[in-house]
Amino acid sequence: MQKSVLGLRRTAGFRKPNIGIAGATGAVGIAMRDCLEQLNFPFNECTFWAHPDEAGDEVVFADRSYKCQVVQEDSFDKVDIALFSAGGNFSKEWAPKAAQAGCVVIDNSSEFRMDPDCPLVIPEVNGHMVEAHRGIIANPNCTTILMNVPVFPLHKAFGVDRAVVSTYQAASGAGLDAMEELRQQAKDWVDGVPLTQDIFGRQYIFNLFCHNASVYEDNGYNEEEWKMIEETPKIFGEDFRVAVTCVRVPVLRSHCESINLQFKKKATLEQVYEILKDSPGITIVDDRQNNKHPEPILANGNHDILVGRVRYDQSVEKGYGIEMFIAGDQLLKGAALNAVQIAQLLLEK
Amino acid sequence: MQKSVLGLRRTAGFRKPNIGIAGATGAVGIAMRDCLEQLNFPFNECTFWAHPDEAGDEVVFADRSYKCQVVQEDSFDKVDIALFSAGGNFSKEWAPKAAQAGCVVIDNSSEFRMDPDCPLVIPEVNGHMVEAHRGIIANPNCTTILMNVPVFPLHKAFGVDRAVVSTYQAASGAGLDAMEELRQQAKDWVDGVPLTQDIFGRQYIFNLFCHNASVYEDNGYNEEEWKMIEETPKIFGEDFRVAVTCVRVPVLRSHCESINLQFKKKATLEQVYEILKDSPGITIVDDRQNNKHPEPILANGNHDILVGRVRYDQSVEKGYGIEMFIAGDQLLKGAALNAVQIAQLLLEK
Repeated sequence: MQKSVLGLRRTAGFRKPNIGIAGATGAVGIAMRDCLEQLNFPFNECTFWAHPDEAGDEVVFADRSYKCQVVQEDSFDKVDIALFSAGGNFSKEWAPKAAQAGCVVIDNSSEFRMDPDCPLVIPEVNGHMVEAHRGIIANPNCTTILMNVPVFPLHKAFGVDRAVVSTYQAASGAGLDAMEELRQQAKDWVDGVPLTQDIFGRQYIFNLFCHNASVYEDNGYNEEEWKMIEETPKIFGEDFRVAVTCVRVPVLRSHCESINLQFKKKATLEQVYEILKDSPGITIVDDRQNNKHPEPILANGNHDILVGRVRYDQSVEKGYGIEMFIAGDQLLKGAALNAVQIAQLLLEK
Repeated sequence: MQKSVLGLRRTAGFRKPNIGIAGATGAVGIAMRDCLEQLNFPFNECTFWAHPDEAGDEVVFADRSYKCQVVQEDSFDKVDIALFSAGGNFSKEWAPKAAQAGCVVIDNSSEFRMDPDCPLVIPEVNGHMVEAHRGIIANPNCTTILMNVPVFPLHKAFGVDRAVVSTYQAASGAGLDAMEELRQQAKDWVDGVPLTQDIFGRQYIFNLFCHNASVYEDNGYNEEEWKMIEETPKIFGEDFRVAVTCVRVPVLRSHCESINLQFKKKATLEQVYEILKDSPGITIVDDRQNNKHPEPILANGNHDILVGRVRYDQSVEKGYGIEMFIAGDQLLKGAALNAVQIAQLLLEK
């Protein structure tokens, strides 16, 4: 295999790349395998890396069984595209080394998202940016991706003056163990025993709490919120004002967001629906009579963002604002699917 | 007992009134009994009315057992203050008759809230309005009460130009059966059997959905949302712009709200905290370092609204907007407690 240096787009000539997943046994890693299969992603060889505790564990991919490996200095020499979802520290250490070895890393951690050398990509929004990579492409935060897919086309059409967003986030964002803790708390509650609180340190079943990401500096926002505030302008390529509150709700794997948009240009609801309908990655679920709107269980396993409850914001001049409610699978479009779609773009370019 | 006509404030002279609760066996009715006891509400005789199916059922109140009665034409002849929480149809039929009989009805249904002859009262906000009653005083919707208690003092100080609110609402708002269905779904889920869906007609455990109140006319808002939009200006006594999305989350009895406020006058966070701290009915829960903020389980049983995550909205000019997150017991301050506090005001006036 050809060796290359950081900045060289090594994938350009490949049709069937060697691929790899770091964090292959995690919630996002599992979903990455599923997405690669579902999208018939072409590959030659495939490598799976996991935590040393899980070295040797078997994973099944494309009807074959693979043993998980521990990442090493020469791990990336023959890999063309590596999907990373093994945490920020892993990415910080290994993504530059992989890039140096000529591999293109699509990184699901927050480590490189705001790095000016790393494109931050949602294929439906700024897919062209993959070409600007220098070995590392960052996958945005789940809440950012879910919001940006429906908001970007509306922003292009009407100019969003300001967005106010509140999230309803599932356990999956904190990993498999967090999902299991929520399930376990349901069992504990039914059994009438003290609730297991290893991950969240509190009652989660029949409760909700502000997102447990740590507080960002001194402004009162938590990191989860700040990611949406900071990542969105980078992805849109222009200033974007968004106020956001991130909340963890007792749901397993899909996030919802309540989104209020103020427009610079006047819009009709018909225009808004038309734009959403014509935009990629969106399914409209807006059946008022049957109160069928976006819900986590409808979004689970769905590659699209579900968008509904689209209505004029009656608190502003008619047409200068709308409200909507969205749901998206946090593990799919919020993480794994977006990463695999970036990999697809890399192959196409 | 003295008879009076609609509009005559019969309670004025009483120190120990005869009281009654309609809907005594419901979630709010039970909470009304608790609140009357906890606040040592003075009374002479007490009557409990329930649905004919529950006539004769025993309820315990102030260490005494009472048999529930079915309401009749002469039921209110000797009652001074009746708390109604037996649904809109019951209120529509019986509240005017009770008022005609000289009883003051404090009605928890939405039936009379927008009636210009009926004050809509939150004691912390517009307690003086109880004096304007003509026999019926309306208790606002739970989400309205919870929002208005912390927002009103800030509105007075800084002038709220516009509020954007998203709710996280518990099962209790739909009654005891709804709470039981959520509990039952947890059991069903653990047992691996089909989920009981008698009340909500859908999966509720590990899911969430837009509030199941029916759609309001043709504007896309549901009734729950429209109540907040419509009731708040009546309570504040002036125009108030609020955009709102109401969502049902799998929580048992306390509601949360994510509240974004834009101010006309500049505010510092210190001023905002000072005002909230000095305002009645509020407990500040805002421990950033330990991520201890308002949560449903912290609000359960609490008479105050918990307010936290108070921070500058960084999407507007600093000081001209804040974000906050609140939690309040839907059955207490969101319903029963507010009604009992109105009754207390009636006695005081």
